[in-house]
Amino acid sequence: MKEYSQMSKQELEQALCEQQKLYKKLQKQGVSVDMTRGRPSKEQLDIAMPMLKNAGGYNYNMSGIDARNYGEPAGVKPARELFANLLEVKSSEVIVFDGSSLDIMYNLVQFAMQFGVRGNTPWNKLDKVKFICPAPGYDRHFAICQTFGIEMIAVPMLDDGPDMSVVEMLVRDDESIKGMWCVPKYSNPTGVVYSDNVVERIAGLKPRAKDFRVFWDNAYIVHGLYEQEDELLNVFIPARQYGNEDMIYELASTSKITFAGSGVAALATSEANVEDILKKTFFKQINPNKVNQIMHVEFLKDVENIKRIMTMHADILRPKFELFEHKLGEAFAEQWDVVRWSTPHGGYFISLDVKGCAKRVVALALEAGVKFTAAGSTYPYMQDDADSNIRIAPSVPSLAETNFASDVLICSIKIALLEKYLNK
Amino acid sequence: MKEYSQMSKQELEQALCEQQKLYKKLQKQGVSVDMTRGRPSKEQLDIAMPMLKNAGGYNYNMSGIDARNYGEPAGVKPARELFANLLEVKSSEVIVFDGSSLDIMYNLVQFAMQFGVRGNTPWNKLDKVKFICPAPGYDRHFAICQTFGIEMIAVPMLDDGPDMSVVEMLVRDDESIKGMWCVPKYSNPTGVVYSDNVVERIAGLKPRAKDFRVFWDNAYIVHGLYEQEDELLNVFIPARQYGNEDMIYELASTSKITFAGSGVAALATSEANVEDILKKTFFKQINPNKVNQIMHVEFLKDVENIKRIMTMHADILRPKFELFEHKLGEAFAEQWDVVRWSTPHGGYFISLDVKGCAKRVVALALEAGVKFTAAGSTYPYMQDDADSNIRIAPSVPSLAETNFASDVLICSIKIALLEKYLNK
Repeated sequence: MKEYSQMSKQELEQALCEQQKLYKKLQKQGVSVDMTRGRPSKEQLDIAMPMLKNAGGYNYNMSGIDARNYGEPAGVKPARELFANLLEVKSSEVIVFDGSSLDIMYNLVQFAMQFGVRGNTPWNKLDKVKFICPAPGYDRHFAICQTFGIEMIAVPMLDDGPDMSVVEMLVRDDESIKGMWCVPKYSNPTGVVYSDNVVERIAGLKPRAKDFRVFWDNAYIVHGLYEQEDELLNVFIPARQYGNEDMIYELASTSKITFAGSGVAALATSEANVEDILKKTFFKQINPNKVNQIMHVEFLKDVENIKRIMTMHADILRPKFELFEHKLGEAFAEQWDVVRWSTPHGGYFISLDVKGCAKRVVALALEAGVKFTAAGSTYPYMQDDADSNIRIAPSVPSLAETNFASDVLICSIKIALLEKYLNK
Repeated sequence: MKEYSQMSKQELEQALCEQQKLYKKLQKQGVSVDMTRGRPSKEQLDIAMPMLKNAGGYNYNMSGIDARNYGEPAGVKPARELFANLLEVKSSEVIVFDGSSLDIMYNLVQFAMQFGVRGNTPWNKLDKVKFICPAPGYDRHFAICQTFGIEMIAVPMLDDGPDMSVVEMLVRDDESIKGMWCVPKYSNPTGVVYSDNVVERIAGLKPRAKDFRVFWDNAYIVHGLYEQEDELLNVFIPARQYGNEDMIYELASTSKITFAGSGVAALATSEANVEDILKKTFFKQINPNKVNQIMHVEFLKDVENIKRIMTMHADILRPKFELFEHKLGEAFAEQWDVVRWSTPHGGYFISLDVKGCAKRVVALALEAGVKFTAAGSTYPYMQDDADSNIRIAPSVPSLAETNFASDVLICSIKIALLEKYLNK
């Protein structure tokens, strides 16, 4: 296919006309596909149904304490141990909460705002609090900043993680920088796995602020799509070497292992932080849902079994990702300077870049029945200056729907590009 | 039995000597009984086991939405409807959260501190925030105030609820009074059920502060001990008449219906408040554990069935309460001016008053193996000026343990009283 940049005005107009015809045809099919959020599909959720089927026979006394009664604010011991094994830390460094890791992160920020971190000034009492936001990134991280009035500093995401030379300089000089969001494995939305070098540089940060915290949101820790697993360095290993173990809040959840929003979520951090956080959660709730924690422990068993379960998820997800990537490749392989996309080894997203066209593409797709996350959502303050990034979440739709959605997306991109070349 | 006040010094000393002998005998038995917290017993928790046994067969799609996936931040519709029926409000006036009503109350206070209530100044920005605390009351309500630095104003609990003439005067004149804690049915710890008159006066309060909220913690709404149910007026009926429906946050949970801390908890309030609160929770979590909500809906079915379940709880709890009350009656029936206790129709506590002796009694009982909640716990700042109130939680111990614990308590009271009369 001839590149648009090589085409005459007449050729461009003819191409646009063709695409508009195709677009109308697609639109007429009246199909409606939602690709906005990283949700598991019904088939994936069915994988965890044995947990419910067997719930009556599980041992709710397995740690010698009746999980059905009050107590154990840090979660039941076997659940702490399971997450400790998964995150490669000690169980005394883990608190297992209810289903939402977002809730844990929100609460950690709110604790810091209201009470301060480990004896430091409450952030509410400071003139300014800033967070480093690698971008594109996870919109709900940014939303937490916005609700608390925390200023977001966008830092570019590179192929191996955030641009660390920028991050190092920022945190060294500015005491008002109190936090940094990270999705270190199969990053949302770019799919990047942080390199060992980046992990080490994050663990070795020398922040001016003593109460600086890295929110290490390991949401996709076992969420590879391929047999060959990507390795992420355990951030606590270099963090301990640098004496920085208090600086890390690591999060994980089973939302995309068992049930979305109805699983269990955990925080891993230093024992000193665990003690501090438990003192604050004491006033909030007597304990998390420990019955659900035992159900998860009994069903998930151990890390090896979790990985086995995750291959079942991968087998369902992979074809959808590959179909999308394949069709994008067919359409735009020769236009890599204009349209580019990620081919992630895991996680829930394909990240697509179409400079100057993201808003128009998302709007066109929507009009043809395919809903993508609003353009800009992956940037702090929704400010994607290049109007470039689109996050694609292929997990829920069927293969047929994925096929339709990719047709709509490709057609929408072509129209947007042609319009741009024609200065329309 | 001759009253202590009628005894000569010699008689008192002899009586003390006898009690000390008995105390040592009890102590020697080496029994250990915990009566500190309102926890259900194993037998009670077993009542809800069919919920886990049948979990595999429940309909997680019953509202047309897959409860196992993300979504529905206000909880699944059938759970909202169940709590709406229980609390006699509309389902649009209910949000169903995770297991802890304490967590809901904490979050409501924290929202008010950080963001303000419905457009009013955030409480964090005010010089002083005060809450009305009917006392004796629930220690964890008071703990929330303490963690946020909210000043507590103790108001006496009478036989039909808080002393409303005091409450009315306080809230009318003082704009810094922003809230009031209530456990309106089988109150913690006194067992009082608020009279219609008290409920109407609370609903009709004319607070100076526009953002004044009543935390109507209906923790024991279906937790009667006897067939004849006590009636509590639905506070929203008079509140609506007074145009005060925004003033009420009603809480309920299944912690003492299914599993303690692993059930579901709900907030009922005006639709305008629901909208405001959902806007804030949006940043916290995508949704509560909806799988657990469906499990509860399928198991609990409807209000009638909940009441049937609660008679099973009552049958387990009632003998323990009655044994305690009976033995206290045998020991102190003629000393009502010195030792008095509640004979509640429901809830989880017997409230005991021994003026000037509470600390000593609790200490003596502890030394003999029986643990009661620390004396003073039922008062703001742990300040029971009369050193009088002891909260007894008879739910967990067996009948044999209850028998032992009442022997220890009675002996400890007698020793403390005799010491007092002897000015020791």
